[in-house]
Amino acid sequence: MREIGADELRHIARGAAILGTGGGGDPYIGRLVAEQAVLEYGPVLVAELHEVPDDALVAGIGMIGAPTVMIEKLPAGEEAVTAFLTLQREIGRPITHVLPIEVGGMNSLAPFPVAASLGLPVLDADCMGRAFPMVQMVVCTLDGVLARPLAVADEKGNSIVLDVHDNHWAERLARSATIGMGCTALMSSFPMSGKQARDITIPGTLTLAAKLGRLVERVRQQHVDPCQAIASFLGGEVLFTGKVVDVMRANDPGFAKGEARLEGDGASCRLEFQNEHLVASRDGEVVASVPDLICVLDAEGEPVPAERLRYGQRVAVLGAPCHPRWRTPEGLALVGPSAFGYSHAYSPLGGQ
Amino acid sequence: MREIGADELRHIARGAAILGTGGGGDPYIGRLVAEQAVLEYGPVLVAELHEVPDDALVAGIGMIGAPTVMIEKLPAGEEAVTAFLTLQREIGRPITHVLPIEVGGMNSLAPFPVAASLGLPVLDADCMGRAFPMVQMVVCTLDGVLARPLAVADEKGNSIVLDVHDNHWAERLARSATIGMGCTALMSSFPMSGKQARDITIPGTLTLAAKLGRLVERVRQQHVDPCQAIASFLGGEVLFTGKVVDVMRANDPGFAKGEARLEGDGASCRLEFQNEHLVASRDGEVVASVPDLICVLDAEGEPVPAERLRYGQRVAVLGAPCHPRWRTPEGLALVGPSAFGYSHAYSPLGGQ
Repeated sequence: MREIGADELRHIARGAAILGTGGGGDPYIGRLVAEQAVLEYGPVLVAELHEVPDDALVAGIGMIGAPTVMIEKLPAGEEAVTAFLTLQREIGRPITHVLPIEVGGMNSLAPFPVAASLGLPVLDADCMGRAFPMVQMVVCTLDGVLARPLAVADEKGNSIVLDVHDNHWAERLARSATIGMGCTALMSSFPMSGKQARDITIPGTLTLAAKLGRLVERVRQQHVDPCQAIASFLGGEVLFTGKVVDVMRANDPGFAKGEARLEGDGASCRLEFQNEHLVASRDGEVVASVPDLICVLDAEGEPVPAERLRYGQRVAVLGAPCHPRWRTPEGLALVGPSAFGYSHAYSPLGGQ
Repeated sequence: MREIGADELRHIARGAAILGTGGGGDPYIGRLVAEQAVLEYGPVLVAELHEVPDDALVAGIGMIGAPTVMIEKLPAGEEAVTAFLTLQREIGRPITHVLPIEVGGMNSLAPFPVAASLGLPVLDADCMGRAFPMVQMVVCTLDGVLARPLAVADEKGNSIVLDVHDNHWAERLARSATIGMGCTALMSSFPMSGKQARDITIPGTLTLAAKLGRLVERVRQQHVDPCQAIASFLGGEVLFTGKVVDVMRANDPGFAKGEARLEGDGASCRLEFQNEHLVASRDGEVVASVPDLICVLDAEGEPVPAERLRYGQRVAVLGAPCHPRWRTPEGLALVGPSAFGYSHAYSPLGGQ
């Protein structure tokens, strides 16, 4: 286990926002909430998966809802703690480790207020290896770990516990509840043993995010193109460079849905998103698609969350391979194009 | 305490559907569910309020959602038990008495499966003295008894517990959850002591419903006009008699909302409903309004739930005074015309 300091929080927020593929929450807000918690309660310990005892009780923490809304309806910092304590009370025994449910500017750091205030370690892992918009879109679903119980809390102190049949129902009912709470909330769920966490979750993603965040800062000082450096770090490629010429968005139902149109170099690019970027098309042809990562970066290599896309921004669109688990038939059924209603076949990035 | 037999269940269902003012659920479904429970587990005891010990733990049970949907998405019978047990687990001690949250064809009988299967008495009382569409529209809200915790369960065995600040938030989040469950569910909430139940709830409404149901059967045999007989039993009046010529309805958001137009005797009548009938207008003028009771009956005195209104029905529209608590300034603020977005002033029926 090692301590996470303020510097590393900044690197994690930036790197995780890149891996969050447009979703996973705003890195600035995520960093502020985590820094505030560390400032108030002291440093947080991060544990590697191999350090977790078999009989540990691990639970995930993450944002749910439309990130667009969270920019204005700021988290109070306490809702993750409320959700976590509600879950723990429902389970009836102490949870020993917290885990980011997904990688994201906000979501990789969402467990930190809980970890800091309750003195629990955060696991260096997550359940997606990126960000996805729905509750069931986690490796847990592939391995039979249920979102049961699932606690949701808002910044007003309201909380809800779900006891549901499967992770798709968890999504459906947690989403409804979140809409009632004003379209953003914090959730805690996926209780699992230490052994399950080791067997199931995607390891090292906090460290990966920190490395990526550090890389961005380093290459900037070296006057290297950060977008190319990030692409090559992730084994991906820059798919498009240009200017945002149109953005359409809606909060329906409880997601930040929309699309952006980009132009540059005599070509056009279309990005479709549901919290995360789902599909990138160049001149009408799909060039990257879920579950692969589609990241939008400004010229400094700063990740641009989907909810921050706006007319006139000059950006690069980057594609990178997802975790291999998502490329299996079960993985693709859960998070591939058809899971989002698309009819195109998935064509893996990165020459696999 | 006295036993309720199958005959009385029939009377309660019919009488409660009249008092349910178009809402409160379908009396046929309500009766079937209650009869099935009594058949399976044996008779149910009904307790008068004065028979409840001070330190009893009382909880309410009722349907939530759009009654239109419940006609097709039938209750399984077990969801009230699931909601009740979820609430009891959350509270952490045994609930001793169950209470209908509102009067209604379905809702007066909603506690019966719980009472029958768990051997608990049902209180001869409710929290509205009629039916209203929203969670906060109960005398409990006037007296500071909170819907906290509140459990919601669906026919698939999913359940949710809310822990919220006030009864308006309970409505908001329980409604969201219910929409996720498919627009109908059963809820259990308003835990209170026996003393509180005695001080707060509206007494004798199961007995009243049974009397009213019995009256309808009796006057039919005596060839008396049942609608006039019901009106005079309730101290109300027949406001309109005619034919339904148009019905508009929508399930939005999680309610059966709509309006019906009636014609007869050279006049027209408009009924606006949100689960329950809210306003009746004759030739454009409001003749009855929430919180007073507006009941639609066919020529046999059979109550017609708002979700069963259809073109061509010949019906009588009856108005009757509500419980005096709803006519106080606090009562009107909670359930009067303005609570439903109307600008008309409330003019009490029955010459008060």
